[in-house]
Amino acid sequence: MDIAEELAKKQKEISVAEFFEKNKQILGFDSPQKSLVMAVKEAVDNSLDACEEARILPEIHVDITKVDRDEYQLTVEDNGPGIVRREVPKVFGQFLYGSRFHSVKQTRGQQGIGISAVVLYSQLTTGKPARIVSKISSDDVAYYFEIMIDTLKNRANVLREEPLISDKKSGVKIQVNLKGKYTRGKQSVLEYLQNTAIVNPHATIVFSDPEGLKVRFERAWNNPIEPPKETKPHPLGVEIGELMQMVSRTSAKKLKTFLTGEFSRISDHLAQEICRISGIECERDPHSLSLDELKRIQESFRKVKILPPTFESLSPIGETLIKKGLKNVLGNLKPSFYSIPVTRKPSVYSGNPFVVEVGLVYGGSIPHDEQVKVLRFANRVPLLYQAGSCALTKAVENIDWRKYGLEQRGGQGLPVGPMIVLIHLGSTRIPYTSEAKEAVAEIPEIMDELDLALKESARQIKAFLIKKEVKAKLTEKFFLVQKILPKIAEKSSRILNKEIPPLDPVITKIMNVLWIEENVSQEGKSARINVNVSNFTPEEKSFRLYADLPDGKLDGNIIPYGEYDENKDYIRWNIESMKPMEKITFTFNVKDLKGDYGETVFYIEGTDPVHVVGAEPLPGDWNLEALRSIIEEEEEEENGEE
Amino acid sequence: MDIAEELAKKQKEISVAEFFEKNKQILGFDSPQKSLVMAVKEAVDNSLDACEEARILPEIHVDITKVDRDEYQLTVEDNGPGIVRREVPKVFGQFLYGSRFHSVKQTRGQQGIGISAVVLYSQLTTGKPARIVSKISSDDVAYYFEIMIDTLKNRANVLREEPLISDKKSGVKIQVNLKGKYTRGKQSVLEYLQNTAIVNPHATIVFSDPEGLKVRFERAWNNPIEPPKETKPHPLGVEIGELMQMVSRTSAKKLKTFLTGEFSRISDHLAQEICRISGIECERDPHSLSLDELKRIQESFRKVKILPPTFESLSPIGETLIKKGLKNVLGNLKPSFYSIPVTRKPSVYSGNPFVVEVGLVYGGSIPHDEQVKVLRFANRVPLLYQAGSCALTKAVENIDWRKYGLEQRGGQGLPVGPMIVLIHLGSTRIPYTSEAKEAVAEIPEIMDELDLALKESARQIKAFLIKKEVKAKLTEKFFLVQKILPKIAEKSSRILNKEIPPLDPVITKIMNVLWIEENVSQEGKSARINVNVSNFTPEEKSFRLYADLPDGKLDGNIIPYGEYDENKDYIRWNIESMKPMEKITFTFNVKDLKGDYGETVFYIEGTDPVHVVGAEPLPGDWNLEALRSIIEEEEEEENGEE
Repeated sequence: MDIAEELAKKQKEISVAEFFEKNKQILGFDSPQKSLVMAVKEAVDNSLDACEEARILPEIHVDITKVDRDEYQLTVEDNGPGIVRREVPKVFGQFLYGSRFHSVKQTRGQQGIGISAVVLYSQLTTGKPARIVSKISSDDVAYYFEIMIDTLKNRANVLREEPLISDKKSGVKIQVNLKGKYTRGKQSVLEYLQNTAIVNPHATIVFSDPEGLKVRFERAWNNPIEPPKETKPHPLGVEIGELMQMVSRTSAKKLKTFLTGEFSRISDHLAQEICRISGIECERDPHSLSLDELKRIQESFRKVKILPPTFESLSPIGETLIKKGLKNVLGNLKPSFYSIPVTRKPSVYSGNPFVVEVGLVYGGSIPHDEQVKVLRFANRVPLLYQAGSCALTKAVENIDWRKYGLEQRGGQGLPVGPMIVLIHLGSTRIPYTSEAKEAVAEIPEIMDELDLALKESARQIKAFLIKKEVKAKLTEKFFLVQKILPKIAEKSSRILNKEIPPLDPVITKIMNVLWIEENVSQEGKSARINVNVSNFTPEEKSFRLYADLPDGKLDGNIIPYGEYDENKDYIRWNIESMKPMEKITFTFNVKDLKGDYGETVFYIEGTDPVHVVGAEPLPGDWNLEALRSIIEEEEEEENGEE
Repeated sequence: MDIAEELAKKQKEISVAEFFEKNKQILGFDSPQKSLVMAVKEAVDNSLDACEEARILPEIHVDITKVDRDEYQLTVEDNGPGIVRREVPKVFGQFLYGSRFHSVKQTRGQQGIGISAVVLYSQLTTGKPARIVSKISSDDVAYYFEIMIDTLKNRANVLREEPLISDKKSGVKIQVNLKGKYTRGKQSVLEYLQNTAIVNPHATIVFSDPEGLKVRFERAWNNPIEPPKETKPHPLGVEIGELMQMVSRTSAKKLKTFLTGEFSRISDHLAQEICRISGIECERDPHSLSLDELKRIQESFRKVKILPPTFESLSPIGETLIKKGLKNVLGNLKPSFYSIPVTRKPSVYSGNPFVVEVGLVYGGSIPHDEQVKVLRFANRVPLLYQAGSCALTKAVENIDWRKYGLEQRGGQGLPVGPMIVLIHLGSTRIPYTSEAKEAVAEIPEIMDELDLALKESARQIKAFLIKKEVKAKLTEKFFLVQKILPKIAEKSSRILNKEIPPLDPVITKIMNVLWIEENVSQEGKSARINVNVSNFTPEEKSFRLYADLPDGKLDGNIIPYGEYDENKDYIRWNIESMKPMEKITFTFNVKDLKGDYGETVFYIEGTDPVHVVGAEPLPGDWNLEALRSIIEEEEEEENGEE
């Protein structure tokens, strides 16, 4: 017989469940330790997504107990909306079944794979079914299920299904037995839950570990997060094949209504422009368009000016949570510089909106001889594995950090030095490298945005280092001017037998800075902070000063009066007028310090930051741009490239 | 309405094709440059697999032309067995369809995903169908197909199908248009084909690139590779869930025949032993076994002595090809040490046999200040991407290379220094981290084997370094003994007025080594090599000496006569007897040198290598084991750990 005929006999369809059963490492279940983390992650991510969709403040209980040498029992229970009875078997017992795959908005789960993977891994390693209880608010009873997956068919095999009395309003509880290895420390369930709690401050997470540890991560915010809204695909980056599909599926009768109706950010006017540029009539039936015509439309997307996507479908974590995330890993370390977290404007890859956020801390007591730490988050989920192949790490590696005081062989690779970086990617579709959702693929558009956000943060380090140098020089000048000038003046006056001239105009002209210096006196867990601000410029100044507290809570009054923003953890003073040579002292107290108070970070607004020593320009201020361009010029001079 | 009901409305099945369409990065198609490499790789891997299965010497033509700004046309044509007409649409137009998923043997393709991914990416980015021509030897005509994938259904959409006159015996030709970016250099189509040609020396690969380059990698071996044989799963590491499935699907009526029939390496005797240990009768119907009983059987697999799998289902690349692979990347670099490639015995993870092979070069002119290069291969396929998250790289990072003269921060991470490592993993199922098959997951069993193979190679470096030191010390001794001893003897004899005693017994007693030294005189592309071997031991010696040529071809006679093995590129001399203080000079010539001849690597067999200077023990020799234990002891002494 022909060998081709023989080979043909072996050709066979493979069920997706069977595929994953034989390739469980693709789902992230490749070692007993990691498997336990993966299982917790999939269940908790689902709970958070469901609560957000139902605008419920999440309370999630995670419980792990040891059953046998390498068998654990995991229970995850939430107070979400529950899952309707008929859907339970499919949601938990079937791969590629879900609600979030087809929607264009930022969610944790996207694939309809994760929780079925947990059920599959559990039955594969222990032979036991998953136990699920679901209660929805409109039912009087909950329902209890025992489910296994028929891998040959990729269908749920329901072993048991029965009503259950429940006094809960709604929620889902899943319990599985699985082969695992429980550890604490790095890449552990605890680390995952801790980081999850930080970037999801609207959630309470309660964890009982198999060794008797009980941890409660209490919610810090009492309002549910505003869930991202569903949107239409953005025209940029849409592939021709997708455009063909959209055209074949649309109910629009005219090209113009197809464009405005199926895409975000295409107005009537823009649709006309697109039709004009592609040389196709607006009234054409989209179903009648040829491949060539569709290509012209696709190309015209690049030629017209389409607004970037809005934040509507996205959910960035924001400045405060980025700072919290960084503070959490710092422990007792005291950096000398906190960057102003950067949240980029939304951008697009393949029609999917995404946003990049970066925050970093630098210097101080952060170890100088270790590789920098990169904290990775995607859609508010901490990423613990596969750092080496993740775009978020790669973007850090691609930057030449040597100019920021870090050691880096050849200006590439993970640098060594006193820095911790937090990166968050939010997107309606995170391009994970695998179904395990551990690492982000190196999509060029995302790499570009990561690069810009990281450079914007790095430039702040540059500015900080330049300022530090400037301050050192100015301190010297200051000493000379303050101490020696009066003596010289006095001496010269005596020789000339004239009156001592007014020195202030000379001093301010030489110095020409607003000088900010703090003085911290700490006792135990409390500290008093005096901030001296002197106007050594020849002009009257008006500005707003911000003090960003590194630790502790404000205690008592602020003198003179300043506003305190509890959420952002800073004090704001509004200084209407400050005359040349005038000095003001600001005083406040903090309590509940965890360690050394460290240094307050000052930001200033409303005056040219080039003439300020001791405060950073407030982000968003026009001056920041000016400062940046100065720094960029300096950088270019230094490197002769960029 | 209950929010749960609202959410339920959105629940939906997702087709696997649709899933990959939206997550093409999971298939490796995440940038235009990489996409082109992926497409070539999937097509060529398929061709190689098919040829091997049909025992045809592969001849594969790869042709890339530029069609448009970012559109390329790729054509891959082979002389394989072809695909029968009715199977063509499924093989190319349906995900999770294939012949190799269910079989336990080493093949490149395993998933039934790769080539459909190419067709999907092509239609997504250009809107054009894949064109396929297939001819099988028992048909008179070939068949031509135009295929697209209906992603909603995961089914082929055959746009055209017609017979075609063809004078080929058999083969497949696939042509696709796709978005891409063609580059040469690192991570390019060229690099992939070059490395593929090296580890598949039975294949001829012809490549025309879009810039007019034509390369022909001629086959070096004229016999088809013996294809790996299909085997049964090995009992070790089989999960309880798999055991349950095997039991439910078996036609065996008795536990004993189930065990011997469905697993490899279980004999009648062993089956009885397993039954006894698990306390279950051999005659029991396997279908009647409870979960608990199956668990006892699974546990007893660990308690009895099961032989490791054979090489039968595997296809290691072997010593010669490992060396060729290393030589290929060396270019003009001359290492001072070539390791004897290590091929471990087959081992098992989750019932899947696998084998690890490692070779390395060290020192010499390999850059000392760059990260070591790791060449990764899995089932004879070069891995070019995702190095950072690959078990093959991780295993290198996990070893403390500082004791081998490399720089490594904290004894972890990719070391810096003069070394290039080649690693091959062969398995009946490579545990890739994703469908893109770019990186291997960190399966504990595989990590262990990689660690052992790498350490075995690293120990050779250690031995080399120790030998180098020993040689330096001996050279000193040699000088003293050879030059000074006769003078002392003469002087003392004169003083004592006695005859000069015979010095040879003294010299050989002090030296006690077989001394091997070469002398190279090169002119242009030719060189003459003189090898002086002196027996400075008090005993008569017999041994076999091997000279492994680093470059060039043997030219003319070997004096005295030695056998030349063209395949392994070495000369072998058989020395029947060599008296104390006897010296022999071996001479040969080489031609066609690419650069500096460098150093010959000498191996010796049949004598204790501890008393040899200038040659390594031949692998497999009993002395190697002895040497190793000496080195290990030394290492332990040095480190007080391991």
